[in-house]
Amino acid sequence: MIREAARPGRRPNPARGNAIRAAVVEILASDGYAGLTMDAVAVLAGVSKATIYRRWPTKTELLVSVIDHASDETLTVRDTGSLRDDLVHLIAALADILGGPGGAASRALLFGAASDPAIGRAFRSGPMDRWGAAFGAAFRRAVDRGELTPDAATSYAAESGPGILVQRWTVGRPIDPSMAEDVVDEVVLPLIERYRPG
Amino acid sequence: MIREAARPGRRPNPARGNAIRAAVVEILASDGYAGLTMDAVAVLAGVSKATIYRRWPTKTELLVSVIDHASDETLTVRDTGSLRDDLVHLIAALADILGGPGGAASRALLFGAASDPAIGRAFRSGPMDRWGAAFGAAFRRAVDRGELTPDAATSYAAESGPGILVQRWTVGRPIDPSMAEDVVDEVVLPLIERYRPG
Repeated sequence: MIREAARPGRRPNPARGNAIRAAVVEILASDGYAGLTMDAVAVLAGVSKATIYRRWPTKTELLVSVIDHASDETLTVRDTGSLRDDLVHLIAALADILGGPGGAASRALLFGAASDPAIGRAFRSGPMDRWGAAFGAAFRRAVDRGELTPDAATSYAAESGPGILVQRWTVGRPIDPSMAEDVVDEVVLPLIERYRPG
Repeated sequence: MIREAARPGRRPNPARGNAIRAAVVEILASDGYAGLTMDAVAVLAGVSKATIYRRWPTKTELLVSVIDHASDETLTVRDTGSLRDDLVHLIAALADILGGPGGAASRALLFGAASDPAIGRAFRSGPMDRWGAAFGAAFRRAVDRGELTPDAATSYAAESGPGILVQRWTVGRPIDPSMAEDVVDEVVLPLIERYRPG
């Protein structure tokens, strides 16, 4: 994870870093990757470009930092003891992100910067890994409770719920956290029946 | 659908138009949207930039033409009389596209040009509509044969199969036409059981 380097005598101001990252997300969501200039970021964040470049000498490093911080507050792990409830929580959280400015910013960044391998890597090793790990952990807890055989965690059934949301995000169809219960009850739970032990 | 305007005394050469579009796809797939310059297209297609601009005065019009022609050869409608076989055919065809250079080019274009609303519109009213229509038609034929209730066609079950593929395409996981039978048999068919009449 890239952390801003501390300069002697000048400690990075976390609020300023957050403001800069928030400005990047807002510009990506509204104007796309083509609209993301350091001038626009500086104006929206209320800082000078020099301030930005001191922390992140290249645009790529700034974008990787944005991606890296992206899921920090949004992905809260909740172990409810019930696979259904764990999945509803995760699917609703994912729908909340994908359907909002973070989802629009991610789409603009992930694909707008497709020619920059550092961006794809940051997404895959950052938010995508974290979401995948959260879903995988929910399935593994169910395996540990004896509710599912181990192959459930890597099955198409496990991909089916997020798949509905990610497809809608990709093609621009509506996504809302209120979909979560139906997606879990109508799609995921029926498909994992084949992974019940015994 | 945008068609190249015929100039008096000079009929558009379809082979040249195809070569220009093929060059766009190849550059998008290998270099992304940022690598797509009219210079690069002209060189790869073996034409002058003036030739390109005569047919498509703006980059957007060229890209819309590429998108519009994209699914022409790849999406063949096949009515096998069996929903399972219709779906296996469609899922395999979609996997073939998404897993190949057309899929890489689409990803680069759909998201690289996310700030150009004409591109998103062209995708939604073009290939996405055509694929959606093909899948919808397969379900409607099953409804007409009395195998499913009508609500199956707009169900999460109907989204589930393509959803697995589109998610993998988005996150960069492997896609192969050999997945088609398992996706249909393990995901789609079990989920449409609830739409069997009677």
